[in-house]
Amino acid sequence: MSVCPFEWRYGSDEMRKIWSLQNRLKVMVEIERALLKALVEAGLIPRVNYEELRKVEVNPREVLELERELKHDVMAFTEALRSKLDPETGKYVHLGATSYDIVDTAWALQIRDALALIYDKLKRVIEKLSCMAIEYKDLVSLGRTHGQWALPITIGFKFANYVYELTRSYERLRETERRVVRLKMSGAVGTMAAWGGKGLLIEKIVAEELGLEPHVISTQVAPRDGFAELISNLAILSSVLDRFALEVRELSRPEISEIVEGVEKGQVGSSTMPHKANPIISEKISGLAKVARGLVVSELENVPLWHERDLTNSSSERIIIPHQFLILDEQLESMLKLLRKLIVNRDAIRRNLEKAGCVNLAERVMVYLTLRKGLARNDAHKLVMNSVREYGSLEEALKGELGKYLSESELKELCDPTTYLGNVSEIIDRTIRYAEETLGVRFNQCTDTRR
Amino acid sequence: MSVCPFEWRYGSDEMRKIWSLQNRLKVMVEIERALLKALVEAGLIPRVNYEELRKVEVNPREVLELERELKHDVMAFTEALRSKLDPETGKYVHLGATSYDIVDTAWALQIRDALALIYDKLKRVIEKLSCMAIEYKDLVSLGRTHGQWALPITIGFKFANYVYELTRSYERLRETERRVVRLKMSGAVGTMAAWGGKGLLIEKIVAEELGLEPHVISTQVAPRDGFAELISNLAILSSVLDRFALEVRELSRPEISEIVEGVEKGQVGSSTMPHKANPIISEKISGLAKVARGLVVSELENVPLWHERDLTNSSSERIIIPHQFLILDEQLESMLKLLRKLIVNRDAIRRNLEKAGCVNLAERVMVYLTLRKGLARNDAHKLVMNSVREYGSLEEALKGELGKYLSESELKELCDPTTYLGNVSEIIDRTIRYAEETLGVRFNQCTDTRR
Amino acid sequence: MSVCPFEWRYGSDEMRKIWSLQNRLKVMVEIERALLKALVEAGLIPRVNYEELRKVEVNPREVLELERELKHDVMAFTEALRSKLDPETGKYVHLGATSYDIVDTAWALQIRDALALIYDKLKRVIEKLSCMAIEYKDLVSLGRTHGQWALPITIGFKFANYVYELTRSYERLRETERRVVRLKMSGAVGTMAAWGGKGLLIEKIVAEELGLEPHVISTQVAPRDGFAELISNLAILSSVLDRFALEVRELSRPEISEIVEGVEKGQVGSSTMPHKANPIISEKISGLAKVARGLVVSELENVPLWHERDLTNSSSERIIIPHQFLILDEQLESMLKLLRKLIVNRDAIRRNLEKAGCVNLAERVMVYLTLRKGLARNDAHKLVMNSVREYGSLEEALKGELGKYLSESELKELCDPTTYLGNVSEIIDRTIRYAEETLGVRFNQCTDTRR
Amino acid sequence: MSVCPFEWRYGSDEMRKIWSLQNRLKVMVEIERALLKALVEAGLIPRVNYEELRKVEVNPREVLELERELKHDVMAFTEALRSKLDPETGKYVHLGATSYDIVDTAWALQIRDALALIYDKLKRVIEKLSCMAIEYKDLVSLGRTHGQWALPITIGFKFANYVYELTRSYERLRETERRVVRLKMSGAVGTMAAWGGKGLLIEKIVAEELGLEPHVISTQVAPRDGFAELISNLAILSSVLDRFALEVRELSRPEISEIVEGVEKGQVGSSTMPHKANPIISEKISGLAKVARGLVVSELENVPLWHERDLTNSSSERIIIPHQFLILDEQLESMLKLLRKLIVNRDAIRRNLEKAGCVNLAERVMVYLTLRKGLARNDAHKLVMNSVREYGSLEEALKGELGKYLSESELKELCDPTTYLGNVSEIIDRTIRYAEETLGVRFNQCTDTRR
Repeated sequence: MSVCPFEWRYGSDEMRKIWSLQNRLKVMVEIERALLKALVEAGLIPRVNYEELRKVEVNPREVLELERELKHDVMAFTEALRSKLDPETGKYVHLGATSYDIVDTAWALQIRDALALIYDKLKRVIEKLSCMAIEYKDLVSLGRTHGQWALPITIGFKFANYVYELTRSYERLRETERRVVRLKMSGAVGTMAAWGGKGLLIEKIVAEELGLEPHVISTQVAPRDGFAELISNLAILSSVLDRFALEVRELSRPEISEIVEGVEKGQVGSSTMPHKANPIISEKISGLAKVARGLVVSELENVPLWHERDLTNSSSERIIIPHQFLILDEQLESMLKLLRKLIVNRDAIRRNLEKAGCVNLAERVMVYLTLRKGLARNDAHKLVMNSVREYGSLEEALKGELGKYLSESELKELCDPTTYLGNVSEIIDRTIRYAEETLGVRFNQCTDTRR
Repeated sequence: MSVCPFEWRYGSDEMRKIWSLQNRLKVMVEIERALLKALVEAGLIPRVNYEELRKVEVNPREVLELERELKHDVMAFTEALRSKLDPETGKYVHLGATSYDIVDTAWALQIRDALALIYDKLKRVIEKLSCMAIEYKDLVSLGRTHGQWALPITIGFKFANYVYELTRSYERLRETERRVVRLKMSGAVGTMAAWGGKGLLIEKIVAEELGLEPHVISTQVAPRDGFAELISNLAILSSVLDRFALEVRELSRPEISEIVEGVEKGQVGSSTMPHKANPIISEKISGLAKVARGLVVSELENVPLWHERDLTNSSSERIIIPHQFLILDEQLESMLKLLRKLIVNRDAIRRNLEKAGCVNLAERVMVYLTLRKGLARNDAHKLVMNSVREYGSLEEALKGELGKYLSESELKELCDPTTYLGNVSEIIDRTIRYAEETLGVRFNQCTDTRR
Repeated sequence: MSVCPFEWRYGSDEMRKIWSLQNRLKVMVEIERALLKALVEAGLIPRVNYEELRKVEVNPREVLELERELKHDVMAFTEALRSKLDPETGKYVHLGATSYDIVDTAWALQIRDALALIYDKLKRVIEKLSCMAIEYKDLVSLGRTHGQWALPITIGFKFANYVYELTRSYERLRETERRVVRLKMSGAVGTMAAWGGKGLLIEKIVAEELGLEPHVISTQVAPRDGFAELISNLAILSSVLDRFALEVRELSRPEISEIVEGVEKGQVGSSTMPHKANPIISEKISGLAKVARGLVVSELENVPLWHERDLTNSSSERIIIPHQFLILDEQLESMLKLLRKLIVNRDAIRRNLEKAGCVNLAERVMVYLTLRKGLARNDAHKLVMNSVREYGSLEEALKGELGKYLSESELKELCDPTTYLGNVSEIIDRTIRYAEETLGVRFNQCTDTRR
Repeated sequence: MSVCPFEWRYGSDEMRKIWSLQNRLKVMVEIERALLKALVEAGLIPRVNYEELRKVEVNPREVLELERELKHDVMAFTEALRSKLDPETGKYVHLGATSYDIVDTAWALQIRDALALIYDKLKRVIEKLSCMAIEYKDLVSLGRTHGQWALPITIGFKFANYVYELTRSYERLRETERRVVRLKMSGAVGTMAAWGGKGLLIEKIVAEELGLEPHVISTQVAPRDGFAELISNLAILSSVLDRFALEVRELSRPEISEIVEGVEKGQVGSSTMPHKANPIISEKISGLAKVARGLVVSELENVPLWHERDLTNSSSERIIIPHQFLILDEQLESMLKLLRKLIVNRDAIRRNLEKAGCVNLAERVMVYLTLRKGLARNDAHKLVMNSVREYGSLEEALKGELGKYLSESELKELCDPTTYLGNVSEIIDRTIRYAEETLGVRFNQCTDTRR
């Protein structure tokens, strides 16, 4: 009786696997194993066979059943786990740990795996966009600000901006990871009391076993500022993807048609309008970003927990954390698909550029009047603005005041958009370089890997 | 491979059923049936056997498979539906409708059912709280403001405040329902074009068949302000429940212990601290409210759709709407359980009241000094405040300035909290009356139904 | 040293006046006067001259200075007030009241005034849009879904949808007002204790004096669910305005140009691109909506206060409530200005409609094939979709499969958008009627009042 | 006519100064100066006297007046600026720049200054908390989870957790600063077109002049992900402060009284209850955090701007950015004041610890039974839990099953909280070390600087 679209609709199977109940329990067993090993090595308990836990599988159903009785999920889990172990080993399971030593460390391990997936997909998105930035480096097109025609850019320059913004998100998540993917192994209130002074040693062994840096200090739980940062930074990435999707949705308008999502064979656009070719992938990316932004507030509210902790983060995070990763995963998968399908329509780009005409280079005329004709910048601005408003075009405006300063041939030269692109090329290169350095890769096989 | 706790952990089965894929499809079939009937009755199509659809069951799996090919969920659904019908009937399925005639009307019908569940549970919560307001009408206890001891109230008065706030939420949702539970049957852009001038008749027949008022006008979709209002008002209810849960969590502190959640037999409080009796139900209610609040922003973002609609509401609402109802459902169920378990600890209440002592009635002394001793209110305030700060208690303070105005016996009389309860009783009655009128019920069998 | 744009940039002076410190204090004096009157009439205090307070003006500066010493804003206020009164009257100021009797009642009165402004401006916006719906009732234009061309609508129909959505917001705010604009006069913890059993009488007199219904019950403060509802419903209105602004911003794109914001004489579009004519009013409306949505979460967090109240709503509401109203006020003022400037560009509308061509009426062809040519709806859908994709246009597609069913002349007739508008006219009428009934007005002088 | 509490109530004067209109204009002049210098040095314009701008003061009033006419704030500013300059210099003001070269760079400079203030105050807060962590390192107290008594901690340990969480916020903001405090100097659409190929040189010179790293690439505006990150990370810090304030508010409850905010001389607690001593500073800190969290969503919505930008970030950021900093500033100032006033009540701490009694060390008994008496951990857990529930205390429980395993003297030894503190001391040291390293300071003069 499925009620949640993350079960079947949004998110890849590999991401779903990370957040599945089964995997959660598997990770928890692994942490209990690491703890048992540490207890043995620290000399706190006899040399029980902790490696036994590697083969144990705890079943969601049995845990949920035990929980119904015990009203405590982790206690139910340890009971289920113990029942599968040699009694001598089972005796010591969970000793000295509090539930959130397991839960928060499980979050850390799952988040590490989930982030690895995100990084991988994000890198592929950035690589594709970088290649497109290179491919379309010189394809001149209209820039647009306020939805209105602005100075020319190149399509490659447009893509390069997304390369930058997405790489920043990558960088940001990497930094966040260092604060949130950490071991929490410090007992009921964070003092490590139950391990009789050997807490730091236990922590060290578990940390090595799981490959995690420990938190410097904690209460019963890992500090929630890290989780809030994670959810928020995922929402920022989600919003940058939303921005790209919005770009495509707008440029796919039939009146513009410059960069178009395109339809797949057999794809129905509308259940009643057979002609429709809707940018549904882009719209899905934008739609999911709204949920990603909403979840940020929920997790921010988890930062101020009571004293050594209260439980209100528990129910909310069961929803927030997997949902946020599944949203991002779906968005990145969708981006990859979108980038494969994306049509850069050279004709439309050129046509629109021509339609905009010379008036679009009014800035250039203003600068020219300032540097070459001795007008003050602001006076030149006013002159050009008024000329355009009065005459409708710069060409026409030569008949008026503007004609005193500018000849027809001068204007014609100024009106060539291909010679008014500033440092587009170097800026794109600089951006690619930044992305390569940050991601630690080289985008040198664009022609091969592209699509 | 379950990743979403609404699949197994949060929400009742009856609520889950409403939001299940199966039910969704069932509701959609019902709408297509009503549309077919309207098409027949309006004379647009031959008299096909629309009642046939009552027996048809469309399977989620087959729809999802068809969607993979068609990339359109509703088109996939109509294909699946048609394949199960007599060809003559199948021919006309969905004729003139746009997908969102089905989708938004399905939302309306599911929301109607879900609200019915919410109303029912909310009423039961209000009824229980009303009975408790009556039962504890005269049980004097400390009021608390800023977490500090304030004038006395009664426990019944405390409960009555929640009766008021929850009844307001009931009233609010009823009003919202009128705006959001509405038929959307107006075709691709809202003009009803495909029905050849008979659109309003079609709408009328479908409306009657489904028992829904139609929207006065719409684009391709029902206006999203209604959905935003719904999600927001559910979040407000969620936050009032959070407030009650917070009350219990605070009063369950061992230092206070006045109203305690209590533990069930066998319930484990902590996986490592065997003595713990944690208010976990209340904490769950508070935790879920954080998610409910976050989802509000997501749905608010769905209000500004493009022109006659864009699709960005679709993916987000698949998550937001069912999740919000499942959260509320879980919270209300938890409230009912909590109210059954709740322990009102008369001893602790009395003990704390005594501990607060006379100083807690400082206001009364101030008013007395004003009305009986001729001091100005603000001067009396200053005198009492300084007396308390200097002497620690009002009794001690009689040795000082205060003693000039007040005898020991006067003070003693003023210090009786049971005679300083104002109009508590009438206010409780007034509140119960308001709840009864709003809910259209009588709470006259409290003794029988209680617990 | 102004740091807040609501001081000079956003919001009208009349709205700013309502939320000014000066007015706040004036309102508080008025409440204290009403309380004094009630105390006299209830016989609790001697017949002091409470009318004296009508002439008193309390100065923000003196209150802030007193607050610095007393660390309590309302106590500072009552001190300042008392200092201006005849001592006999001053003696009884604030007697029996708690600060929030004054503060929450002041909010109620200010909100009432602020809502009156909002209603007035909103009504004017709705009236203008209604007149435009009537004026452009028959002006056929493209509908747009997913940003793609959809079935035709009329410009009047487009405006009518906003009439509906905005009127719903009006209706919603009216309902909210009944829950939030209420008297809170119940003393320190809501029991009315200080008035010696005469609390309900006091409340009644103050209620009449101020023209407010009292809350049925309260703690130290009015229940915050009402404030959350208010802030949220204002954010919904804000988002509907955002939707209209978005409509204009999109249709103002030079490639579309159908409904254009237009520039004012002398208005600079860009500091560097003299040709720019940016839809800055619409963009401001959209921009402010983002803040309005954010403030909703903040106020939702104020619902769960501790016990008989804590103070955390105080600092946040000082910001949230005035800001939200000033945002809405600025948006409505901007809407009025925008509607005055708005250019409906008939040429562009017709040109785009022609550009879309017959393919845009593919639905009509599908329905025709179903009703007249015996194809099943879904088969007709497939045929038309594939025809369009293969041949690029319906006209061309007559050469293929489609030609078997449809003659050139049949197609031509089907391709006339002006005969495929369904019930647009009746729906617009129905919408205007709904607005008139809800607002209690008649839009019968459109020609006179328009612009 | 002040309507915004940031004008007079919240925020320090120094923070207010940074965000004042006056300072904004001053910063903008400085950027125009740097640009003029770059234009000269790059050889694009004659050697005008750009140093002249150092002495120029542009007045908010004149800019606002010009804006009324020009409808463009930056154009108004450049006009005002030019009017104060030697005409030869004025001619070239703003040449080649777009408004947001100035606006976004001004944000960067103001944010840099504002962050410097935040760092400074945050460091002082962390230092004070560190000193308190050291001072109270060994003061044993109850830990509390779920609001219930948990294992003992020390007060120093409690403070050290905040040291950790706040230092993480410091670290996070430092990382964010690198992404957001950057030069944006790239012209109308980010191509640097107007500078005739010398854009990168211009950028370099301005960057050096202002001491800012430039953005690698940009559209018309700096990418908004950085602003979203900033607002969000400030909200996280705000929420950690909220957590501390919540700690104080809870521990200030008269029933607990362990760490108390305390009242200042003359401070009024309640306008009607003279005895009240409310934790108003803490409550203000918590209250403001709600607004800080709300603003995050608003800024997240600014990430997806259209194409090379739209203007919807402008109006919202005018509110969001200064407000968020003023909130944080007020919270940090309040924290410093709170920490000065904070009373650590050794008596209450000891008394509560005693009240909790031995049962609170139930974990220790369980571990003892496991390690010394051969019970399995989970069986020991069950035994202890049931013993406590049946007998009410561990001492009593010796009469039952528990007595088989434990002697009275064993129990007594186990019941000493001072010997069950685990690695509290090393963990505190480790935390202080982390803070010192991250902040680049030494907390070695605690005794001197404290309070």
